[in-house]
Amino acid sequence: MDIFLEKNRGVLLAYDQGLEHGPTDFNERSFDPAFIMRLAVEGKFNGIILQKGLAEKYYDGRVPLIVKVNGKTSLPKGEPIARQNCSVRHAAELGARAVGYTIYAGSAHESVMLKEFGRIQEEAHKLNMAAIAWIYPRGEAIKNDSAPEIIAYAARVGLEAGADAVKIKYPGTVDAFKWAVKCAGKTKVFMSGGPRAPTEADFLTHVRGAVDAGAAGLAVGRNDWQSADPLKMARALRALVIEDRSVEEAMRA
Amino acid sequence: MDIFLEKNRGVLLAYDQGLEHGPTDFNERSFDPAFIMRLAVEGKFNGIILQKGLAEKYYDGRVPLIVKVNGKTSLPKGEPIARQNCSVRHAAELGARAVGYTIYAGSAHESVMLKEFGRIQEEAHKLNMAAIAWIYPRGEAIKNDSAPEIIAYAARVGLEAGADAVKIKYPGTVDAFKWAVKCAGKTKVFMSGGPRAPTEADFLTHVRGAVDAGAAGLAVGRNDWQSADPLKMARALRALVIEDRSVEEAMRA
Amino acid sequence: MDIFLEKNRGVLLAYDQGLEHGPTDFNERSFDPAFIMRLAVEGKFNGIILQKGLAEKYYDGRVPLIVKVNGKTSLPKGEPIARQNCSVRHAAELGARAVGYTIYAGSAHESVMLKEFGRIQEEAHKLNMAAIAWIYPRGEAIKNDSAPEIIAYAARVGLEAGADAVKIKYPGTVDAFKWAVKCAGKTKVFMSGGPRAPTEADFLTHVRGAVDAGAAGLAVGRNDWQSADPLKMARALRALVIEDRSVEEAMRA
Amino acid sequence: MDIFLEKNRGVLLAYDQGLEHGPTDFNERSFDPAFIMRLAVEGKFNGIILQKGLAEKYYDGRVPLIVKVNGKTSLPKGEPIARQNCSVRHAAELGARAVGYTIYAGSAHESVMLKEFGRIQEEAHKLNMAAIAWIYPRGEAIKNDSAPEIIAYAARVGLEAGADAVKIKYPGTVDAFKWAVKCAGKTKVFMSGGPRAPTEADFLTHVRGAVDAGAAGLAVGRNDWQSADPLKMARALRALVIEDRSVEEAMRA
Amino acid sequence: MDIFLEKNRGVLLAYDQGLEHGPTDFNERSFDPAFIMRLAVEGKFNGIILQKGLAEKYYDGRVPLIVKVNGKTSLPKGEPIARQNCSVRHAAELGARAVGYTIYAGSAHESVMLKEFGRIQEEAHKLNMAAIAWIYPRGEAIKNDSAPEIIAYAARVGLEAGADAVKIKYPGTVDAFKWAVKCAGKTKVFMSGGPRAPTEADFLTHVRGAVDAGAAGLAVGRNDWQSADPLKMARALRALVIEDRSVEEAMRA
Repeated sequence: MDIFLEKNRGVLLAYDQGLEHGPTDFNERSFDPAFIMRLAVEGKFNGIILQKGLAEKYYDGRVPLIVKVNGKTSLPKGEPIARQNCSVRHAAELGARAVGYTIYAGSAHESVMLKEFGRIQEEAHKLNMAAIAWIYPRGEAIKNDSAPEIIAYAARVGLEAGADAVKIKYPGTVDAFKWAVKCAGKTKVFMSGGPRAPTEADFLTHVRGAVDAGAAGLAVGRNDWQSADPLKMARALRALVIEDRSVEEAMRA
Repeated sequence: MDIFLEKNRGVLLAYDQGLEHGPTDFNERSFDPAFIMRLAVEGKFNGIILQKGLAEKYYDGRVPLIVKVNGKTSLPKGEPIARQNCSVRHAAELGARAVGYTIYAGSAHESVMLKEFGRIQEEAHKLNMAAIAWIYPRGEAIKNDSAPEIIAYAARVGLEAGADAVKIKYPGTVDAFKWAVKCAGKTKVFMSGGPRAPTEADFLTHVRGAVDAGAAGLAVGRNDWQSADPLKMARALRALVIEDRSVEEAMRA
Repeated sequence: MDIFLEKNRGVLLAYDQGLEHGPTDFNERSFDPAFIMRLAVEGKFNGIILQKGLAEKYYDGRVPLIVKVNGKTSLPKGEPIARQNCSVRHAAELGARAVGYTIYAGSAHESVMLKEFGRIQEEAHKLNMAAIAWIYPRGEAIKNDSAPEIIAYAARVGLEAGADAVKIKYPGTVDAFKWAVKCAGKTKVFMSGGPRAPTEADFLTHVRGAVDAGAAGLAVGRNDWQSADPLKMARALRALVIEDRSVEEAMRA
Repeated sequence: MDIFLEKNRGVLLAYDQGLEHGPTDFNERSFDPAFIMRLAVEGKFNGIILQKGLAEKYYDGRVPLIVKVNGKTSLPKGEPIARQNCSVRHAAELGARAVGYTIYAGSAHESVMLKEFGRIQEEAHKLNMAAIAWIYPRGEAIKNDSAPEIIAYAARVGLEAGADAVKIKYPGTVDAFKWAVKCAGKTKVFMSGGPRAPTEADFLTHVRGAVDAGAAGLAVGRNDWQSADPLKMARALRALVIEDRSVEEAMRA
Repeated sequence: MDIFLEKNRGVLLAYDQGLEHGPTDFNERSFDPAFIMRLAVEGKFNGIILQKGLAEKYYDGRVPLIVKVNGKTSLPKGEPIARQNCSVRHAAELGARAVGYTIYAGSAHESVMLKEFGRIQEEAHKLNMAAIAWIYPRGEAIKNDSAPEIIAYAARVGLEAGADAVKIKYPGTVDAFKWAVKCAGKTKVFMSGGPRAPTEADFLTHVRGAVDAGAAGLAVGRNDWQSADPLKMARALRALVIEDRSVEEAMRA
């Protein structure tokens, strides 16, 4: 994971929303992977997260790459499942330094994903790549996927499953996130940026909370490239996460 | 994909309807793969799309070949699924320069197809073949499979999944197709010919719209070989797509 | 397929009913595979169709062998499925010149069988064996499995799937079978003998119809070995199919 | 199968009830595999049937071994299924001369077991081991699993599937079992001992019926080791099956 | 299993609750794997049970290691299933001397787990590792998972499946556990610690009962590291299990 960290922190640019949510997430610029690649470089992000299709056609090596090796559309109903759609070896050939994989804990298909991640993690480590787990509790059994005990559970699943880093939602308070970070142990915790927050200050306050709680950083997508000035937001996030500034300082960065 | 393009455009002849819809699609000539093979040559199509059974028994190498490596009949009810029925290596041995694979995005079995396509795409590229994805949103979760946001989503899935080209339905307007083409990025977009249009002018107007929207071309089946004069339609499509003529000019071609 | 043909026609002896329907199909002689093996030789059949268990214990090499490599009992309810129960290599070791495989088109499990047949067909061809597909539309979605459009669809599925020959039901009329034969293209069509017909003349009239329609022949089981004189029926079928005689001539053979 | 036969007959000691039914089948002696191993030797059984766990820890090579390579508990509801839990190679390493496998014909999962047995049978034969099929029609579709036509069907499935021997229930009458034996052809038929019979005479009368019907013998568990004097029962069974004595003679053995 | 035994007994420290139940099981110290690792050493436990993620990041080799190679969260509803998430080879590379695997006997997915454990057990033995089975009867079919006949059945499944040791619940009485131990034969029986008992004396009384019944020991988690003084509890358990002391003596240890 060191390649993705500065001062032991990292701001990752997530750009798999085209598969996960569809292009309704995109505006007139953000649909374009080339725009996002430039943003990753100019925004000095510590890593970029892409499905293999984007990595194959747009990745230029200037920012450390995480290839997401599973994914689903938002279209199917029923218990969520996403299976491996990119081999670990292929991710390595694309220049990836880590693979990402989503486990829908609580889904009726949870065991398929825990098994698949188990194999992927071992393959990744053999190729000197990190294995990052998106742990998203979902499915009919999950009433509130942001409840503190659910988020802490998600963090712990990442640790137990052997993830080098885990990406989880912000559970609303610094204390709740602290508990999640403690439960993740030596597994780095990245806050999931999530849908666009009402204001930039709201979003940055959450990020500040996550960092205060011990997170290694965040993976941000929509809250950056849906904003009016993605580079400004990138600067703010770096200031806050890497330079450990306050929300106010970060907004002036 | 270059083998399938002239002036960066292509008109592909689709002929997997015998499996997908059954022979009720065929008339007294079009049931015969030999007729279609001649049509492909004489109509100067840029590629022909066949299931392996037809390729094995009828393909003669005179038109670049795409072997469709999955398929289903129209008979089963329930959530759609089609699995790989031809190995990539076998497609290569048949002379194919690309493999085609349908992903029913939105189906309860979506993850099976995303996974299978992921493997097939990597195998195809290793053998210097293109991987073309038919992305058809289907299943109980899909209320309108031609809605602009659904078609744009389909196009994007193709890009994210690593398809060299994607085959999608026409969403009704040039603007909607433009959005889909933008979302497909560097993945070439081919319009799916679909069922026979009320008039040839209607069909050509859609094709013109697709091309105006940035499509690389189309894959046409029924609107060509169900027509009274398939060669005339082929000339019209070439004029329109490759030579960039208007609908009126194309109809006089 | 040539090994199974005389004058480009063939009469195959089907004997997998013990698995497919159970021994209620058998009479005091026909339960015995040794009796059937003698019948195959003395009746000059062009091929015999056996599950591997019978081939291993009774097959003596005097008639070309087709090993059926999937099968099911008639006992389970629900959507039909039969999976591979014999490797292609093992069939070859048993002396088979072809493998047979049933695809229940229209079943909810159709995709499993299309996939499995796809692999089997490639393996068989690598070992210089033919691949014969039994295409039986079945399952809740199929209202009438003998409707002309369903039989023609079945024939076409065989062609598209790469079968060297397809075994389908007789759809009731010569014209309907003609359409099926045309849709099968270069794939040989064999009529499925089916349950015992009311009279021998009825059965032979159907066979004559199939041959007139262009079938390569038939695979017969119950209508031969349930009859009072199986050898006489065998002579009649040879006269009709191979020697192209009329029903009346065949009944006097 | 010869290793398991004397004078072409065999009495096999079945001891997989611990997995299949649980220890409620056992009394104060029969829970102990060491007791059963001694019984197998002293009772001069022609073979002993064990799951791999028992074979690994208790088998001493003094009686020919059949390793059962699938099994299930009696606990789950729903359509029955048992999958392979021991590799054929491992069974061979344990000294087994045959593998046993249960197929629940009629189950919604029938095709999984027919497929798995198909592979196991080929592997076993390659290692010079016999393949024995337990064919038990079960599941919602089976109204009476001892009906003569169901038992005859079970016997036939064993033959068609390539089993060297088949283990089936006693269908109540000698005539019904005769039909099953005829349907099994060259596949040896072993009567399944089943739950403890009301009296020893009842049980022996069934066994006598099976042998008279042409069975190669039986596989007995509970009717032996649940009896007051298992060695006496073993002597009776040997007298009856191997020495072809009457029930009365056997009970005095 | 010898590495995990002293005087043929063993006290194992279980710490896979983070995955199985989530961090609500943990207090301010026990969330931390480093704390647990120290406890394992200082408490002189005979083995420690970890998911691979914890073993990779915290295991230091000072206590024999059991890597649990499947697991599930407590979140999904429906029939329980946990699949392999760590290869046996990887467990060996981590220094494990045994692998652990849970089989939910009675689950609709029982056959998947019996099959998977069968393969894992063979792989483990080839690498000179023990295979330990957690046999937990669960699912809709199980009304009372602590009933004596259910616990005895669980023990027997472990023996039949080839487990070197089995971990089962305490069925409430010494006699019931005795029956389970007898049914487990040469498979070592470990009592599952289970949720925290009302008092330490209650818990130790159960453990004393298990040992009196013939258990090799127990695997304890929550009843140790949720207690006020985990080292004191460890001393008590050692006194009771290894030194065979009474509950009273153990509580003074």
